Amino acid sequence: MFTKILIANRGEIAVRIIRACREMGIETVAVYSEADKDALHVQMADEAVCIGGKSPKDSYLNMYNIISATVLTGAQAIHPGFGFLSENSKFANMCKECNIVFIGPDGSIIDKMGNKSNARQIMTDAEVPVIPGSAGVVEDEEKALELGEKMGYPVMVKASAGGGGRGIRIVNSKDEMKSAFNMAKAEAETAFGDGSMYVEKFIKKPRHIEFQILGDNYGNIVHLGERDCSLQRRNQKVLEESPSPKMNEKLREKMGEAAIKAAKAVGYKNAGTIEFLLDSDNKFYFMEMNTRIQVEHPITEMVTGIDLIKYQIKIAYGEKLDLKQEDINLKGHAIECRINAEDVKNGFRPCPGTINDLYVPGGLGVRLDSSVYTGYAIPPYYDSMIGKLICYGNDRKEAIQIMKRALGEFIIEGLPTNIDFQFELLNDANFASGNYDTKYIEKLLTDNK
Amino acid sequence: MFTKILIANRGEIAVRIIRACREMGIETVAVYSEADKDALHVQMADEAVCIGGKSPKDSYLNMYNIISATVLTGAQAIHPGFGFLSENSKFANMCKECNIVFIGPDGSIIDKMGNKSNARQIMTDAEVPVIPGSAGVVEDEEKALELGEKMGYPVMVKASAGGGGRGIRIVNSKDEMKSAFNMAKAEAETAFGDGSMYVEKFIKKPRHIEFQILGDNYGNIVHLGERDCSLQRRNQKVLEESPSPKMNEKLREKMGEAAIKAAKAVGYKNAGTIEFLLDSDNKFYFMEMNTRIQVEHPITEMVTGIDLIKYQIKIAYGEKLDLKQEDINLKGHAIECRINAEDVKNGFRPCPGTINDLYVPGGLGVRLDSSVYTGYAIPPYYDSMIGKLICYGNDRKEAIQIMKRALGEFIIEGLPTNIDFQFELLNDANFASGNYDTKYIEKLLTDNK
Repeated sequence: MFTKILIANRGEIAVRIIRACREMGIETVAVYSEADKDALHVQMADEAVCIGGKSPKDSYLNMYNIISATVLTGAQAIHPGFGFLSENSKFANMCKECNIVFIGPDGSIIDKMGNKSNARQIMTDAEVPVIPGSAGVVEDEEKALELGEKMGYPVMVKASAGGGGRGIRIVNSKDEMKSAFNMAKAEAETAFGDGSMYVEKFIKKPRHIEFQILGDNYGNIVHLGERDCSLQRRNQKVLEESPSPKMNEKLREKMGEAAIKAAKAVGYKNAGTIEFLLDSDNKFYFMEMNTRIQVEHPITEMVTGIDLIKYQIKIAYGEKLDLKQEDINLKGHAIECRINAEDVKNGFRPCPGTINDLYVPGGLGVRLDSSVYTGYAIPPYYDSMIGKLICYGNDRKEAIQIMKRALGEFIIEGLPTNIDFQFELLNDANFASGNYDTKYIEKLLTDNK
Repeated sequence: MFTKILIANRGEIAVRIIRACREMGIETVAVYSEADKDALHVQMADEAVCIGGKSPKDSYLNMYNIISATVLTGAQAIHPGFGFLSENSKFANMCKECNIVFIGPDGSIIDKMGNKSNARQIMTDAEVPVIPGSAGVVEDEEKALELGEKMGYPVMVKASAGGGGRGIRIVNSKDEMKSAFNMAKAEAETAFGDGSMYVEKFIKKPRHIEFQILGDNYGNIVHLGERDCSLQRRNQKVLEESPSPKMNEKLREKMGEAAIKAAKAVGYKNAGTIEFLLDSDNKFYFMEMNTRIQVEHPITEMVTGIDLIKYQIKIAYGEKLDLKQEDINLKGHAIECRINAEDVKNGFRPCPGTINDLYVPGGLGVRLDSSVYTGYAIPPYYDSMIGKLICYGNDRKEAIQIMKRALGEFIIEGLPTNIDFQFELLNDANFASGNYDTKYIEKLLTDNK
């Protein structure tokens, strides 16, 4: 096994990786920017190297300095965490050239999945469902009707040059196509001077359902069930849960198979996530693959009992996957609330500051992945997430009860947080019944205005 | 279900019970002594009533004040926690007379198990093995030989008036009996002027193994596997784990059956624990039954997924046990380290004081049940336990790794703690191999002197 790993990240994910390494008996090297000298990951690691200024491009995105720190400290591998360089194929390739193990897939896989239209083509070839759409411009209403018939209604007609909601119509049946197509086209011509149109399947009440994948270097790939990440605000996930309240055994089997097919299509190695949209008729469509560990990975760990970071490291070292699909059973229910330093009442504006007082919840079913401590000054240069509160219960109802109890105990003084907002979300009747989609938080915020 | 419960306790167990109640939607009433006005349980509960002065007898043992607080606040039930009034049959009976539900067994059951010789007789009648011994005085070596043959060697010959190690001999085989009996008898006559002797089975390298029991009001009783609590110092448990490294499936089945038989023999209701001594030949003997929740209950919760406090409350309310023995499976491994405010180098002297700085470990597999916070002054009037760190892994090795990692993260400043001592214990080679008995910590401390 590796004896020393460098962690090219900061915040709670750096702490998370240090913890896994320590439990595996692996020494750790933290890297940090000038703004992060008091950060927890710097204090926790066995060694720490300053890699540059406060701006991410000078430090956490500074490939040369990170590679130098790795060579200098004699670390054999780099864990990139999420964000920063985690999906940068150039960095992954650079590691390889320097004989450093990049804990993640090869650069070529990152590239294949990073280019969205490329990924869409790979999935289409592998017969993984993607959101149906016209290949290019749709000349007239007759062609649009053909496509509508083929994809199944509702569909969207969209101006190629569109934006701001103009030149777009939802078409619920073939009877509506003619007028919708021509009106949208006319609107686009007026607004953008370009009437070229395309047609795409309209996903009703979509849910964001993602499948966790683990693949080794020998072609073995398993999935670890799903996470429901539909509760988002401006495409930022707010609360995630596993299993999804919408899931059933048969659908999980189908989506899981599709996820494995998707991962196999690119010969995927290490931990990754296949993101799907699931519509209200339980039809699902590939959105994208994330070729790294995800923020919300702990909920999968709670329901499967599998430590994903340890598996990332073992796989990167060359160990064969010792998990078989039939051995992976989801047990209980886990919820993650992202705790951010932000002013919810001021448009969720990030609010860095100093934590004057801190009481973290504890007890049965409560896990906190965080990088803060009493007296810690959150720097303004990075994201506003200060921790993740993960609660586990025997079923969804209990997980919600534990999360509400834990949020109620959480005390962070000195800066505003979204703890109250998360508490309200957990008390929402639609959340309680599992009845939400990717637009639900925005709807809630509009309704409450 | 109850709508309000009063918690007749303090410290981490009061916090633990408040958490369970909150998750069940039950309001809580804390009681506190004058010394505990800043205690966490007081801050966490929905209501709090001061019940008297700092001395336990004036407050946490003050039955009348506690009953009054219950009536005044309209609580329907009292959870006694552990210690204080939890095994006081008079208090349990008083609750009943006042139409308050005592969350625990009836006073009559507490009495039956509280009297050790009575409990021994009940267990003997129920054919639960007890430590074999002569009923009374053994007249001569011939009688002693008979008993030795019956019990199986080794046995101890002990002076009835004995003490300080005099008048005692371990007899390993019948050949040693004659001289041992007569020498011990002569020694006793010289030392105490009384040569009456008795014979007891000698338990080789005993381990303290206890079985958690849950029984409802309708005669249904299940066991939740064992806890190994052999690591003790002066009869105070230091570190507990579940399952026991000494256990195997067949032995668990046998001991579990004996535990259920023991509980059935007294018509046991609610949560309780049957404590056994297990010898090096895997023979086990009933020691006593604790008719309350135990300090170390969390490790059972971690490996069974069963919230014991919630079950105590549901059973006390009259709910039927919804658990069947065959549904209870131990999964993974849990370890609890008791974190005490004590000066290990000064004979483990309790050291109350103020916590100036606090960082609590977090992440996967870490649970903390504690009642402290930054700035909290631990009062000198109660026990020195300030929290319990519970770590869970997929197997014993991982649980140990996580515990070491978590102990390494734990920062408590302002007073001495036993964190380093626990860390050393976890690094001990005999602990690592599961090779320890009830005398092991004392042996370690002597060896290191």
